[in-house]
Amino acid sequence: MLEADLLVTDIGQLVTVRGADAPRTGGAMSELGIVESGAIAALGGRIVALGSESEVLDTVSAGPGTAELDAGGRVVTPGLVDPHTHAVFARTRENEFAMRVEGRSYEDIAEAGGGIRSSVRSVRQMSEDELFSRGAATLDRMMEFGTTTVEVKSGYGLSLEAELKMLRVIARLSELHALDVVPTFLGAHEFPDEYREDRDGYVSELTRRMIPAVARAKLARFCDVFCERGVFSVEQSRAVLLAAQEHGMASKLHADELSAFGGAELAAELSAVSADHLICASDEGLKAMADGGVVAVLLPGTTLSLGKREFARARFIIEAGGAIALATDCNPGSSMTESMQIIMALASMVMRMTPEEVLVAATINAASAVGMERSVGSLAVGKLCDLVLWEVDDYRAIPYHYGVNLAASVVKRGTVVSTRGHGA
Amino acid sequence: MLEADLLVTDIGQLVTVRGADAPRTGGAMSELGIVESGAIAALGGRIVALGSESEVLDTVSAGPGTAELDAGGRVVTPGLVDPHTHAVFARTRENEFAMRVEGRSYEDIAEAGGGIRSSVRSVRQMSEDELFSRGAATLDRMMEFGTTTVEVKSGYGLSLEAELKMLRVIARLSELHALDVVPTFLGAHEFPDEYREDRDGYVSELTRRMIPAVARAKLARFCDVFCERGVFSVEQSRAVLLAAQEHGMASKLHADELSAFGGAELAAELSAVSADHLICASDEGLKAMADGGVVAVLLPGTTLSLGKREFARARFIIEAGGAIALATDCNPGSSMTESMQIIMALASMVMRMTPEEVLVAATINAASAVGMERSVGSLAVGKLCDLVLWEVDDYRAIPYHYGVNLAASVVKRGTVVSTRGHGA
Repeated sequence: MLEADLLVTDIGQLVTVRGADAPRTGGAMSELGIVESGAIAALGGRIVALGSESEVLDTVSAGPGTAELDAGGRVVTPGLVDPHTHAVFARTRENEFAMRVEGRSYEDIAEAGGGIRSSVRSVRQMSEDELFSRGAATLDRMMEFGTTTVEVKSGYGLSLEAELKMLRVIARLSELHALDVVPTFLGAHEFPDEYREDRDGYVSELTRRMIPAVARAKLARFCDVFCERGVFSVEQSRAVLLAAQEHGMASKLHADELSAFGGAELAAELSAVSADHLICASDEGLKAMADGGVVAVLLPGTTLSLGKREFARARFIIEAGGAIALATDCNPGSSMTESMQIIMALASMVMRMTPEEVLVAATINAASAVGMERSVGSLAVGKLCDLVLWEVDDYRAIPYHYGVNLAASVVKRGTVVSTRGHGA
Repeated sequence: MLEADLLVTDIGQLVTVRGADAPRTGGAMSELGIVESGAIAALGGRIVALGSESEVLDTVSAGPGTAELDAGGRVVTPGLVDPHTHAVFARTRENEFAMRVEGRSYEDIAEAGGGIRSSVRSVRQMSEDELFSRGAATLDRMMEFGTTTVEVKSGYGLSLEAELKMLRVIARLSELHALDVVPTFLGAHEFPDEYREDRDGYVSELTRRMIPAVARAKLARFCDVFCERGVFSVEQSRAVLLAAQEHGMASKLHADELSAFGGAELAAELSAVSADHLICASDEGLKAMADGGVVAVLLPGTTLSLGKREFARARFIIEAGGAIALATDCNPGSSMTESMQIIMALASMVMRMTPEEVLVAATINAASAVGMERSVGSLAVGKLCDLVLWEVDDYRAIPYHYGVNLAASVVKRGTVVSTRGHGA
C-alpha cells in the first residue's frame, strides 16, 4: 500500500491532461485524458496515485495523517499556469483606461505621463518591501482563481539597479508565496528616458552589463523583449536574446502585437520557448513557430482591454500544428486581471477555442511556455499535486460560466491554499 | 441629532449618482455626484444622512446599536441593479456553448435538443422547491458581486401552469432572499412545442388566458416579449403587450437582437419601460426610444458569449440623448454570468462607455429600467441603503480591473449581506 498525506475522492471528471510532458499541438490540444469517478493521492506535495476511485483506494492507505477532500462528484483539473504576467508593479493605471475609452490616442496618453514609462517611474520610487507586499496581494488573488504557477516579468525598472530590485522582489515572492513563480528578465520592455536618444546605447547596456549581472545573481530563467515597431527592432531584439542565451537564459518574445514585425519569425529562428501576443503575426511566422516548437502564448484579455477587435488567430495556429498557451498578461497598463478563468472564457468566445483546447492551453501548454512541463501542467505520478476543485459538473462549464470564480478549492503542492465558502 | 443603525465612514469617493430619480440621458450619464471624504448613515434600511464625513458626523448620533463600517478610504457606490435576467432555470447548457464554439449552427443545436426549448423541458419537469433553491444560489452569487436589486423573468414554462410555477418561485425569492426581486412575465419567450403549428393560437392563449391569470395572481410587474424574426412578430408582440398593459403590467421588449425587426420602434410606440439587446436596432428606432424615454438595456456579455463581434451602439444612443442601462442577461443559453462587474468592464471595452456612463447605467438607469428608480439606484435621503463598498481607490478602476470580484462588502437595506475576507 502507498502512503498518502492527501486524498481527493469523489471526482466526477478527473481531467488529467496526461501524456507526454511536452506542449500539445494541433488536434492533440483536445485530449484531456478524463477519468470518471476518479481519485488522486499525494505525498509530500507530489502525486503518488491517480485514476478510478476504486483503483486509487485499493493502492493507497489513508491514515490519521491523511487529509481527505471530497470533490462532491465535480470536476478536478491540474492547477492553472499563467505564463505571461507583469504582476509586480507599483500603481494601477485606471486613468489611462478611461482616457482610452474616451478615444484618446496612445500618444496623448504618453504625453499625459502614461504608458509603460509611468509604471517605470512609480516602480523606481517604491521600496522593495512595498513592491513585495503588492505583488503578494496580486498573487493571492491569482491563486483564489485557480492559478498555481505563474511567470512574472521585470521590465518596469529599465536600469540595472531597478531591474535587479524587481527581480529580487520576484525571487522573494517565489520563496515566500505558495505559488510557484518563474522569473523573466524584461529589461528590454521599453527604452528608458535616459536612453531615448541613444537606443543602441541601451541595447549595449542590456547585453554588456545588465544581462551578465542578472545571470550572475541567478535571478531570471528567461529573457524577454518587446519586439515591435517603435520599441525594439528585430535586430536589437536578436542581440538582446542571443546575449541572454549565452548567459543561460532561454528566450521569450513579445511578438507582432501591433504590426506584422517579424517577431514570430525571430522566435522560430532563436528557438524561443514562447512568442506572445501574435495578433498581427504572419502566416509564415506562425508556421515557423509551429515547426520549431515555439509555444504561442495568446492574451485575448489584453486585446479586449485595449478596446481592439482583432484577436490572435488561434484556429490558424492550431490548424498549422502549433501549440497555444493562454495567459492573463496581468499588468496595470493593458490587462488588469488576475483571473485565468476570464481569459479561458474569452478564448472560447472571441478566438473560438473549444473548452478542451482552452484547458490544455491553460495547463500543460502554459507549463511548457515557462519550461515547467516536467513538474506541473498535467496530473501524473511524480508531478506536483497542484489541483483546482471546480464548482461545476462538466469541464465545459469552465469557459461557459464567465466573470465569476468557479474554483471551489485550490491545492498547491498537496496543500489546500484557497477555499471558498459557497456551493454552486 | 438623527438616529442611525448603520454608519459608513471614511469613504474616499462616495458615488451618489444623486439628482432626479429618473433615467439619466445623454451627457447626464457622466454625472456621478461624487463626495470626497464622505459618510452615509441609515436607519431601518433607509438612508437618513449622507455627504461629507464631518457633516454626517455632526448630524448623526451613533449609539451602541449603530453598526459602524469603515470604508478604508475607498469607493462606495449605490448597490448595482441588474435589470434583465432569466435567473430561474433548471440546468446549465455548457454543451450548447461548446457546440457553438465548434461552429455548429443554431439549427444544429436546436435539432440536438438545445435552445430555449431545452430549458423549457427541464423547468417543466423540476419541482418548485428545486427551482427555488437553484435560483437562490444564483441570487447569492449576484449579491456577492454587488447586485442588490434584480429583475427576473419567467419564460421557461410557456404554459399557464409552468409559467405560474416560475412566477411563484420568483415571488418566493423576492420574499425570502435579501435581494429585491422584480418579476417579469415572459410567456412570449418562444412558441411552445404544443403551438408550433398554431402560433396565433399561442398568442390568444397568452392574451386571453395567461396574462389575465398572471395579473389576478399579482405575480408580475412587467410583461416582456421576444420580438424577433422567427419568434414573435411585431404584430404578435404588440397584441401581447397591449393585453398586458390592460391588466396593469408595464411593457418590456427583447428587441432587434438578431435583425432590425422594428422592436425599438414598437417599444417607443407602446411607451415601454425598456427595450433590451438592440444590437441591430435602426437609427430611427433608437431615436424614437430616446425621444419617448424608453431605457435601452444593453447586454454586451450575451453578444460575446454568442461569439459575435457586433455590439449594440452605445455611443449612438448616448449621442441621440437616450438612456442606457446594463444587465447580465444571466441565463443558461446565451450569457451564463451572475456578475454585473464583468458586464460593466465589457461595456467599457467593447462599447466604449466611460467608467462614469457605466456606473450610471448599472445603478439609476438600471433601476429606471425596472421601475424602481424612486427607491434604489442612487444615494439620497429616504432611498434604500443599498451599497457596494469597493476594494478600489478610484471608481474608474471598477470597469478597468476585470474578471475578478472587487466588491469588498455589499449592504442591502442597511444590512451587510456579503463580505469578502481579503484586501485589494
